[in-house]
Amino acid sequence: MSWMGGSASTGVTGLERRLARRILEASGDPRLRLVLWNSEELRLSDAPALGRVVLRERRVLRDLLLAPGSNGLGDAYASGALEIEGDLPSVLKLAFAAPRRATPLRRAAWAWQLWRRRSRSRSKARANVHHHYDLGNDFYARWLDRSMSYTCAYFPTPTASLEEAQIAKHEHVARKLWLRPGERVVEAGCGWGSLALHLARAHGARVTAYNISSEQIRYAREQARAQGLSDRVEFREDDYRNIAGSYDAFVSVGMLEHVGPENYRRLGRVIDRCLAPDGRGLIHSIGRVARRPMDPWISRHIFPGAYAPTLEQMVAILSKRDFAVLDVEDLRLHYEKTLAHWLERFEKNAAEIERRFDARFVRTWRLYLAGSQASFHTSSLQLWQVAFARSRSNAIPWTRAKLYAREA
Amino acid sequence: MSWMGGSASTGVTGLERRLARRILEASGDPRLRLVLWNSEELRLSDAPALGRVVLRERRVLRDLLLAPGSNGLGDAYASGALEIEGDLPSVLKLAFAAPRRATPLRRAAWAWQLWRRRSRSRSKARANVHHHYDLGNDFYARWLDRSMSYTCAYFPTPTASLEEAQIAKHEHVARKLWLRPGERVVEAGCGWGSLALHLARAHGARVTAYNISSEQIRYAREQARAQGLSDRVEFREDDYRNIAGSYDAFVSVGMLEHVGPENYRRLGRVIDRCLAPDGRGLIHSIGRVARRPMDPWISRHIFPGAYAPTLEQMVAILSKRDFAVLDVEDLRLHYEKTLAHWLERFEKNAAEIERRFDARFVRTWRLYLAGSQASFHTSSLQLWQVAFARSRSNAIPWTRAKLYAREA
Repeated sequence: MSWMGGSASTGVTGLERRLARRILEASGDPRLRLVLWNSEELRLSDAPALGRVVLRERRVLRDLLLAPGSNGLGDAYASGALEIEGDLPSVLKLAFAAPRRATPLRRAAWAWQLWRRRSRSRSKARANVHHHYDLGNDFYARWLDRSMSYTCAYFPTPTASLEEAQIAKHEHVARKLWLRPGERVVEAGCGWGSLALHLARAHGARVTAYNISSEQIRYAREQARAQGLSDRVEFREDDYRNIAGSYDAFVSVGMLEHVGPENYRRLGRVIDRCLAPDGRGLIHSIGRVARRPMDPWISRHIFPGAYAPTLEQMVAILSKRDFAVLDVEDLRLHYEKTLAHWLERFEKNAAEIERRFDARFVRTWRLYLAGSQASFHTSSLQLWQVAFARSRSNAIPWTRAKLYAREA
Repeated sequence: MSWMGGSASTGVTGLERRLARRILEASGDPRLRLVLWNSEELRLSDAPALGRVVLRERRVLRDLLLAPGSNGLGDAYASGALEIEGDLPSVLKLAFAAPRRATPLRRAAWAWQLWRRRSRSRSKARANVHHHYDLGNDFYARWLDRSMSYTCAYFPTPTASLEEAQIAKHEHVARKLWLRPGERVVEAGCGWGSLALHLARAHGARVTAYNISSEQIRYAREQARAQGLSDRVEFREDDYRNIAGSYDAFVSVGMLEHVGPENYRRLGRVIDRCLAPDGRGLIHSIGRVARRPMDPWISRHIFPGAYAPTLEQMVAILSKRDFAVLDVEDLRLHYEKTLAHWLERFEKNAAEIERRFDARFVRTWRLYLAGSQASFHTSSLQLWQVAFARSRSNAIPWTRAKLYAREA
């Protein structure tokens, strides 16, 4: 089995060529090219090429075939052993657009990954969050919008700017919560505080916001001081499981992905405990149509402990505590666009980011941003906002027309 | 156990009085009174009475205690052995507002009713539908709106008329389906055809509508002829399981309640089979926050074979076939208002309906309409509209703003 052996030789064996062609066929798109380490180009047709995947080393072929999920692609791309020529998100969209056949082996692997006990205890959760969110506020400031919102934006029109779309998202959430001045809001997982600050500033809410990332909490508190909102927004460096008090609204934007299915019941109990009888709630989360584990490469390098729930799982968190779902909206294509904006800004600052970290870090993050964009485009990820209230409450909006009123 | 015996004596024993008081306490509302067959009135407090439940015969007490669900209440009310004084829906709202404790016995009964094999084969489905929908178009015309829409209306404002609200519902559904002129729509369970006719008339759609009620189909075809729409709407007297062809939109308003959970997978396959790659779909159905069997009295006298699914079950019908849920809206309070309109019209024609049927029929339907109104008010029933598309389709609306545009 010489093809699995050393890499001194640049020759390509017949077996290697057949295996490489099989990878290309699996993607199924005639506009993709696969280039081997001897510069030999494989193609499915003579259609104009949209992108080329270049295997610079023969071991990459083995990794692509044998590593689970996108581990092979991810590691090879991060190290530079695999290069993608052409517009990265576009090429990944082609690669991801192929129907993912749920072979028995793949199903078994998914099931194992889903049922394997994952620890998202308070201490482990803190470590997971630290891994991702404490890379330094400076790093995120290079490619997020001014408000430092690191969740799907809401573009009233596709041409809105990212800054406009993040404000529009905050406003969309506020309207779905039907906030009135002076109401008490609790936010579970507040990031750098942009939504909490918006709800206090634009809606007169009194907000208590929880987050276990110390870097983010520090930044959010500074912002509250700078904006004169410290009396109306309290940022607590604490776990959502410790939420205490009673609130008119519960909101969580982009935290559920880090909660983990084994804690869904507990999250439901937390919401039940803290929400007033006529309170309203909203959960905004990445999701999936079918139960699948997180991509292992993303899990390892980007989001340890993350899991994207199905809509059935999101609804069950609520229905088990007798909350009725009032409104669900899928914002999948808005996340694709959000990621396109992030990637564009990231690329503008790539040289600087590489100086602070290294080339591998830049390539890892580039692939994560472009790959996520492709995942929302091809619908392997969804983004759902789920609004709810206690089922017995009749203090619910009559229609949704006010969400779309012009005073926006 | 004299209280369970004959009814010649009008005396009330101590045991009977204690049991009656327990029923009153279970309802928990101090504004309710319970009047026994000897005219003795029981009350929890001296708060002003909002309604009185009068047991005219001693056997009613036994039936209230022993018959499952609302069988005791339903049969006694229908026969006149139990009378409700005061505004019927208001009194039922009080009675239904008490928290329904899920005792182990009750859970076991629910589970048994849920898992018992119910036949909704094509022939049985036809018999079930005939029982309810073929009472005569004249009967329904006495209390439905002009368009003969027998599903939850959509009131743009709470003061809209029923006629306006049914047209608004058709328009709301059409917008959620994102219909364009000339598109092909299939409707599963079309009632008297009002939605199908609206989609053809106002949106230029070509509609194929299925229904197994022969009375309804006959009426719908007449309407199509009268409105000059026969070339654009085809009414087929056939089961949804026989839907054939390919369509740009699938819509089903108020049929899922009759499908039964054992057929949900099959319904999913039917939608998958008939929807074009970029097609859109909408299912509008009564639902419940938690899994519960249909009330047995309603099952027996009004809707044989009916079942109201949870939102999780509705979503699963779609996700199992790789459809992504794009939009969910809870219209529970709109159904409460729809039923209030129906009951008001029903009462105006009660004397005439009684002449055609009999007093028991009128009392049965009055209780059904008032009780349903109370059930939506107290949230033991929900009404969800679920819009969806194939998960891989990117031909989906960018936002929902157009649903609320003024050209309505």
